Amino acid sequence: MSDLKTAALEYHALPRPGKISVELTKPTETARDLALAYSPGVAEPVREIAREPNLAYKYTSKGNLVGVITDGTAILGLGNLGPLASKPVMEGKGVLFKRFAGVDVFDIEVDAESPQAFIDTVRRISITFGGINLEDIKAPECFEIERALIEQCDIPVFHDDQHGTAIVTAAGMLNALEIAGKELATAKIVCLGSGAAAISCMRLLISLGAKVENIFMLDRKGVIHSGRDDLNQYKAAFAHDTDKHTLEQAMEGADVFVGLAGSNLLSADNLKRMAERPVVFACSNPDPEISPELAHATRSDVIMATGRSDYPNQVNNVLCFPFIFRGALDVRASRINEEMKIAVVHALRDLAKAPVSPEVCAAYGLDTLEFGREYIIPKPLDPRLITIVPDAAAKAAIESGVASLPYPRNYPLQSVADVFK
Amino acid sequence: MSDLKTAALEYHALPRPGKISVELTKPTETARDLALAYSPGVAEPVREIAREPNLAYKYTSKGNLVGVITDGTAILGLGNLGPLASKPVMEGKGVLFKRFAGVDVFDIEVDAESPQAFIDTVRRISITFGGINLEDIKAPECFEIERALIEQCDIPVFHDDQHGTAIVTAAGMLNALEIAGKELATAKIVCLGSGAAAISCMRLLISLGAKVENIFMLDRKGVIHSGRDDLNQYKAAFAHDTDKHTLEQAMEGADVFVGLAGSNLLSADNLKRMAERPVVFACSNPDPEISPELAHATRSDVIMATGRSDYPNQVNNVLCFPFIFRGALDVRASRINEEMKIAVVHALRDLAKAPVSPEVCAAYGLDTLEFGREYIIPKPLDPRLITIVPDAAAKAAIESGVASLPYPRNYPLQSVADVFK
Repeated sequence: MSDLKTAALEYHALPRPGKISVELTKPTETARDLALAYSPGVAEPVREIAREPNLAYKYTSKGNLVGVITDGTAILGLGNLGPLASKPVMEGKGVLFKRFAGVDVFDIEVDAESPQAFIDTVRRISITFGGINLEDIKAPECFEIERALIEQCDIPVFHDDQHGTAIVTAAGMLNALEIAGKELATAKIVCLGSGAAAISCMRLLISLGAKVENIFMLDRKGVIHSGRDDLNQYKAAFAHDTDKHTLEQAMEGADVFVGLAGSNLLSADNLKRMAERPVVFACSNPDPEISPELAHATRSDVIMATGRSDYPNQVNNVLCFPFIFRGALDVRASRINEEMKIAVVHALRDLAKAPVSPEVCAAYGLDTLEFGREYIIPKPLDPRLITIVPDAAAKAAIESGVASLPYPRNYPLQSVADVFK
Repeated sequence: MSDLKTAALEYHALPRPGKISVELTKPTETARDLALAYSPGVAEPVREIAREPNLAYKYTSKGNLVGVITDGTAILGLGNLGPLASKPVMEGKGVLFKRFAGVDVFDIEVDAESPQAFIDTVRRISITFGGINLEDIKAPECFEIERALIEQCDIPVFHDDQHGTAIVTAAGMLNALEIAGKELATAKIVCLGSGAAAISCMRLLISLGAKVENIFMLDRKGVIHSGRDDLNQYKAAFAHDTDKHTLEQAMEGADVFVGLAGSNLLSADNLKRMAERPVVFACSNPDPEISPELAHATRSDVIMATGRSDYPNQVNNVLCFPFIFRGALDVRASRINEEMKIAVVHALRDLAKAPVSPEVCAAYGLDTLEFGREYIIPKPLDPRLITIVPDAAAKAAIESGVASLPYPRNYPLQSVADVFK
């Protein structure tokens, strides 16, 4: 067994199974404590919530509680291994929510016989939570599932594999293009992959100014174009009239390559076909579409990001999901809308331009981190994330009219402070 | 506002809403820690569980995790207030599970349009958990819901309002009858109430030797007897041929009264009708079917229990549910069967006969607790419960063939020790 495998299995198994426990936040020592926590005292908050449902946020853990929910159909890059096998990932997501933003998470694995059964199940249990993070659900079903749940639930519903990836990618992309001296509005973009993350990335880049006619999305059959009759509605939105049908043709003169497809699918020859100062986001894990070593050996002018933590410029969803939920929960947003996503893109983009403390550099074994080709995306251990990103999301929620509380609330910030104490 | 109301609302709201949080049990400080907890390390336990599903108990929190799940149709004695209003009770149940037995709980409130929708929802999310505690679901739907879920899930499913109440009642009843010098097999029993707890109590007493022809169960229309044509199948099981149709008639010469119906429904006159050394379990909360003061003033020979903590002999479910689940989880029982329930009855019964430490007496402001009319049921703060009751449940699970592990496992006992450290 590899070192990582051994260490990861031991980490999960010892000294006790799993990564989480539920702890009590109120005293429970005496008979009096228990009379308040349970019978007869608990009848009082029950009556209050029955009278005014919003008081659930005052008397229960709902307001700081996110359900991380999956059907196990697209676990990491491993595919459809079923909901039980996804549990370590879902618990891990909860660990990141808590570690980075003080958000409590119940991970729920759903053994659903159909997308509709999954939707029905999540809708029925949604009142348990203050927000729902959908996870590891395969495309194209994930689009309809998220749409239906956003419509049917009165709390934020966010499919992180789509939007978390898109938000962090977009933040890095804006910085990469700035360094390359290019504009998103005119950039020619090749997107290798047409799954949940790919479609959501391209949608968000369009929200930010990219032109659909400049985007060449490829699935297993090649470029998605208007001459094809085998496209679902989500892919079809990216089809345009073009005679470029292969990856080789699409790469000719491209400014941007976004890989969300699989390891080693981008050859040195295709990289050579790109325009000057090409931007390459090779996000497949564990092995990117092209290795940074090969990319830099092939083109000295490439600006590159990957999904890996052992290279510069990691596209890591943890930069987004704990913090966008922190902001949404703090102002009790009814949804996470496009305005909030775009605000987080700009917050992350701006943070990468700010000077980084020696402590953060040291945490990554680096002497320095300065905005430039090797540093276009903030690092997850940057302690400024927990103030800057939730602030941006919360303010956008307020300004776009989906918040129901002013900012900031006291208790979540207190709990965040606890996490970092 | 009463003192209790004020204190209970403050307890739930301050310094932060609710009573629980989710905490991390593994290190998450460094980038290396996070690489084990989440990507890329988490892929290893995922692959292992996909290969061998039982490894979910080794690599995730499933094995110590109980879902406390409700539809909110019968909250405490308050009725059908809906699932959201039930959340303080469900969180409180989780608090008791953790406080008394180190069991982690996710409380799940289900907004279900029908019993079948509730069943489908709970079945689909059941793989998340090591066990399911159903709670505050109204009769008669609760019987079919529990039956279906026991059949459809491969983990223990236990409706505490039925079986927890029944087990603690039965333990106290056996002791009360012993003190009264009577036998369960010949005792004439009046059960006022025909809901989930009442039916389950009488079923368990029959398992322990009571005779159905000696049981007079009453609903709002009087004694359930074979001449009635308005009975559901659960009540009908208690119907026999009798000319006693009213409470007055049933009480004549009765040895035992079990009240699970409502406050002050047992009059002094009816108490007078009972046989010598009558056993009265008046379990309605907050006000029992007859007050202990009135009962003792009416009959000096009465042996009495209530649902209240401020009188002797409280029938309190917390004596059972944390511990029976602790035992079931420790040996990974596939279900909580009749053998396990009866083993817990006898464990609780025997514990009440053992000498009580001065510390436990002091916790209740008492000089002494000695087996007798004023002490037939153990006290919740008795620290021997956590060893005696899970042991009894686990051993019964092993002997009846529903356990899949030897006893004891190490980690839950360790976590229990943590709770009491």
